[in-house]
Parts: sequence; structure tokens; C-alpha cells
Amino acid sequence: MTMTLNRRVLLVSRPDGEPTVENFRLEEVALAPLAPGQVLVRHHFLSLDPYMRGRMSESKSYAAPQPLGEVMIGGTVGEVVESRSDRYAVGDRVVGMGGWQEYQIVDGGVPGVLRKVEAGRIPLSAYLGAVGMPGVTAWYGLIKIIAPKAGETVVVSAASGAVGAVVGQLAKLRGARAVGIAGGAEKCRAVVDEFGFDACIDYREHADARSLAGALREACPAGIDGHFENVGGAILDAVMQRANAFSRIAMCGMIAGYNGVPIPMTVPQLILLNRMKIEGFIVSEHLEVWPEALAELGGLVAAGRLRYRESIAQGIESAPAAFLGLLKGRNFGKQLVKLV
Amino acid sequence: MTMTLNRRVLLVSRPDGEPTVENFRLEEVALAPLAPGQVLVRHHFLSLDPYMRGRMSESKSYAAPQPLGEVMIGGTVGEVVESRSDRYAVGDRVVGMGGWQEYQIVDGGVPGVLRKVEAGRIPLSAYLGAVGMPGVTAWYGLIKIIAPKAGETVVVSAASGAVGAVVGQLAKLRGARAVGIAGGAEKCRAVVDEFGFDACIDYREHADARSLAGALREACPAGIDGHFENVGGAILDAVMQRANAFSRIAMCGMIAGYNGVPIPMTVPQLILLNRMKIEGFIVSEHLEVWPEALAELGGLVAAGRLRYRESIAQGIESAPAAFLGLLKGRNFGKQLVKLV
Repeated sequence: MTMTLNRRVLLVSRPDGEPTVENFRLEEVALAPLAPGQVLVRHHFLSLDPYMRGRMSESKSYAAPQPLGEVMIGGTVGEVVESRSDRYAVGDRVVGMGGWQEYQIVDGGVPGVLRKVEAGRIPLSAYLGAVGMPGVTAWYGLIKIIAPKAGETVVVSAASGAVGAVVGQLAKLRGARAVGIAGGAEKCRAVVDEFGFDACIDYREHADARSLAGALREACPAGIDGHFENVGGAILDAVMQRANAFSRIAMCGMIAGYNGVPIPMTVPQLILLNRMKIEGFIVSEHLEVWPEALAELGGLVAAGRLRYRESIAQGIESAPAAFLGLLKGRNFGKQLVKLV
Repeated sequence: MTMTLNRRVLLVSRPDGEPTVENFRLEEVALAPLAPGQVLVRHHFLSLDPYMRGRMSESKSYAAPQPLGEVMIGGTVGEVVESRSDRYAVGDRVVGMGGWQEYQIVDGGVPGVLRKVEAGRIPLSAYLGAVGMPGVTAWYGLIKIIAPKAGETVVVSAASGAVGAVVGQLAKLRGARAVGIAGGAEKCRAVVDEFGFDACIDYREHADARSLAGALREACPAGIDGHFENVGGAILDAVMQRANAFSRIAMCGMIAGYNGVPIPMTVPQLILLNRMKIEGFIVSEHLEVWPEALAELGGLVAAGRLRYRESIAQGIESAPAAFLGLLKGRNFGKQLVKLV
């Protein structure tokens, strides 16, 4: 039996302000032989996500920080290449939290660590995107918090992203008007032309919340009933200025504050004046909705009715730079690292 | 038949900054004889409430502004003294929106304008307080938005007020820890000794949100699960700093912003980090809960299990000054004007 080498990326220091590639280290180690009950998974794709930025810091977050000197946390999809567990067979496609590495050894007896997925009608990478955590995130915030009625208007920030694109498409499927906010003309074009939103606003063309609110007035002539917030800051302020009575905001991401400086909400009085509901959520805390959400999302992707884009970096060594690009909004759609 | 004179207070100008007594005018007019179907109500009590400040201005609010030259809006409780309607008899006790005046002529055929109430076990004035709009406001925000579980901690600002005192007592009845925030040692003592809260913080002893958050840490050793917001500003910021995961804020009043300058929410990211829900509401938009709420509140007051305080000004001519005192927090408990 030949020794299998595993390349992996560790977090070795915490960022002081913006993270850099120096916070990470690539190393190569030999994989130990499998013990009874264990499974060896070869990762095909690693998912890169904004939440990872929070884990890099010690600061208060909803999750424990990523320990230094250990493999960075991350969602993965791959294939069982060796098994000493009767629960998994070589060739099984599995989704897990394998981290930033090419291989993972898993105890096949621990429930929930690996989830078998169907290969065929749905591309494997989609299980990290539209049919994975980003898709369920979109589904939960839209269906369970915003709960749009036909004819209402739903706004989504980071609309070309893995979450935002799904939010708008699900809103359209429920008969709502979908308006995106994204950075740059190319992304805005795709939001409308590829993902079928009714309109998209390029926030880079607007210097402040006031200007953005003006653009929202044009794009949302009947006001805003639901907002899926992936960004925060001036975008949130602008949306609140155009919010209707009884509008709902699902708060999913506040990227603008991740680097340490909180950005105030300028007019919280609007929550009362407009009888708004604002709710923050983390999709991993709502496991009860995953089966229903994944069934709808998987069906839509298999039927070609839910579209998505992917930005794919090649090789584990490219993960740190791809992650920093994601934080700067350089990706388009779901950011993945291809490991095979 | 002698001519009945009605004294009433009109809004004659809109405030530029803080309202003054000059914005109001007292006048005396003769009441017209009743037409068929009409009812003459003599008001015993007029309710003064913070929402009236919003109605004085043209600025965006959830309700139409009070028209100039007309009787100021306001809740009233009184007695039918003359009736040409077969729906009301002389002697009926009725609650309505009679405005700042001693008498009101009402079309007895219009449903919902007057609501007959029981006289006897419940003092008439309570129908403007604990068994009226303030009580139902407390009930809705606490029961429908905060929904406290036994053992949780609920914080209330303006805790000695007509709404706040009910919030804390209802929270205690449901097994929660109730912590008040009020202005001054006397009010804080009453919040604990009279209304039975577990603790009360005097916000005047704290210069900023940081200091207030320190006091909240002591008063809420297990953090804050629910908050009933009657004030906003630094109080809201401080509460959010001590909020637990999955905490709920019922946003009922933002007095701090009424004079025109919005006060930002300093760290809206906490909504996401703590997966909070913040919801603004106006109790008059939830008429479906009034019967259930009034039944509970009326039963508690009749049984002596729900305590409240009243500040009573005498005579319609004292209404403007009493209202300005309310805006400055000079009242203690429900601010009423006695008209008989």
C-alpha cells in the first residue's frame, strides 16, 4: 500500500485588521492507515465562506474561534476512497466539514459528520452552494423570516453571491418582485439576465445611503416589504428608508463590520415607525428546516429552474488567496476550491 | 333645557423643537342639541400619552398628524349623560377617543367609537391605564413578541410608567426575572417595592451606554432574554450589549428621538451575533388580541394582583402643562386629567 500524502492549510496567526496570506500555512503530511470503523474521504471541492473571517479572530462571535495551528474549518464535498466502516462504501459521495485539506479521515459511526448525497442529476459542487449551506441560508431567511406574499417586493444585498442569487430566485418563484444590490455592472447584469431578478442596483454608483435610497425608490416603486441583508452599513440604512409598514429584514451577514469597526444603524426609530421586524439567524441552528429546504432546492437545480454561478480556484494551495478575494468581493457566485 | 358649555383644547401650531403650551389653546363652546341617534358623553378622565407628541408634527409617522385648529386627540373614559340612541342609556360608562375636552357628542350607531365598560370592581380611570391601551400595549409586546419563558430575564425601560409597570408584573406572573430601568431613586424604589420587579436601574446614575451596560450586568447575571423598549438611545445600546442568544426586543417607544434628531443604534451587528429579533408594533393595529388581553388585565386589577400608579392633573385647562411634564418624565405612572 502506498502512503497517501495530504496537503492542508492551517491558521497560524490571527489577523490584526485585514487578514493576509501570512495568517495561513500550507503543509503536507502523510495520512495514517485507517483504524476499524474509519473512512477516508477524498475532497473534490472545498467551500470558502464569509463566516470564516469571524472564526479567525478571538472577538465575540456566535461560534468558537478557529484554534491556531489547526486545519481551517470549511465545508467539503468528496468521495469515499477507502472504508473500514460498514456504513460507507468506496465511491459514496459525501458532504461534510472536512476543512481546508485534500483528504479527511472520519469515524463512520458518528452520526451527522458525513451526509451521503446523490451524484448524477445534481453537480457535486452544488452541494456546497445552491443545494448546500448557502442555499438553505437563502431558503430559511426568505421563507421563515421574510415570508413574502405574491406581489410584495423583496430586496437582497450581495445579490450575485451564492446566497443572494438563491434568495431572489425563490422570491420570484413565490410571485414577489425581486430587486438585487450588487457591486459592479457585470454582476448586476447577471443578477437580472441570468438569475431573473426584476432589477439590480450597483451600489458602487452610490456614495451614501441617501443616494442608494433614491435608486431603491426607482427600483421598488411600491416600497420594500422584505430585505435579505448580507452586507449591512449604508445598504441597511438605505433599505430602511424605503421600507413599508410591516416589512421584515432577515439579517444574515454584516460583512462591513467584520474588520472590527461596527457601523451604526442610523435611524432605528424606523423599526417602530414602520412596525418592522428584524431578525438575525444562523442557518446551522435550524437543522429542522434542512430536509424541506434541500428537497426544494435540489429539485429546482435538477430541473434547471435554479441557476447559480461558481468561482473555482484550483488546488488547496490557492485557498488563502481565494478566501481573501472573497472578502474583497472578487468572486462571482459561490467561491470554491477544486481539489481534484 | 340649559345650554351645556364644553371646554376643549385645540392644537393651534406645530412645535419647532420642544413643544410648549403656546402650541395649544383652550376654548369654551356651547354644545349643540343632540340629533336623533346621538349620545352626549361627559368625560371623567382624559389620558395623556407620548404618542401625542408624534401627532403634533408633520414629520413622517405611522399616523396622520393632528390637524391644526381641531381638538387634540386623546383617549377618554366617561358617562353617558344624555342619549337619543337606543344603544346607550344615561349612566352607561364608556371608553372612547373623545379628545382633550369635557364633553363629546357621538353617533351611537357607529360601531367601535364607544366601548361600554363595567363600573364597580375596576376604577374608571384604570380603563385608560392598566385595563386600557397602556395595559394592552404591555401585554402585546410582552406576550406576543418577547414571549418570556419561566426563568428568563426581561428588562423594561420607563419601568415606572403606565406601560412599563404592567410589563414587569406580567413577566413576573409568568415566572421571569423582571428588571426595570427608570429615572430617579423614587421611581426605582416604587418599581421594586410597589410593582415587585426584582431590580431597577436608575439611568440618571449612568452617563453612557457602557456604564449602563455595567449596571445591567449586575442586575441580569444570566443576561437579557427579552427587552421591552419604551425609550431607545443609550438604553437600547446598553441592553443589546448584554443580550443573550435568541433574545427578543419589543420596540414600543423611542421617546429620545421624538424631538427630531434620530439616535443611531451603535452596534447593529449584535442582532446577527446574538440572533436577536427586534420588532416594532402599535397596539391599535392588533385589535384581535384586545379581548384576551383586557380579560387578563381586568381580572388582575379587580383581584388586586396588578398594581399601578396615576398622576392626575385637575381640569381640562391643566392638560397642556401636564402633557409637557409627561414628555419630560415628570409624571409617575399613568398621566391623567380629571375632568369632573
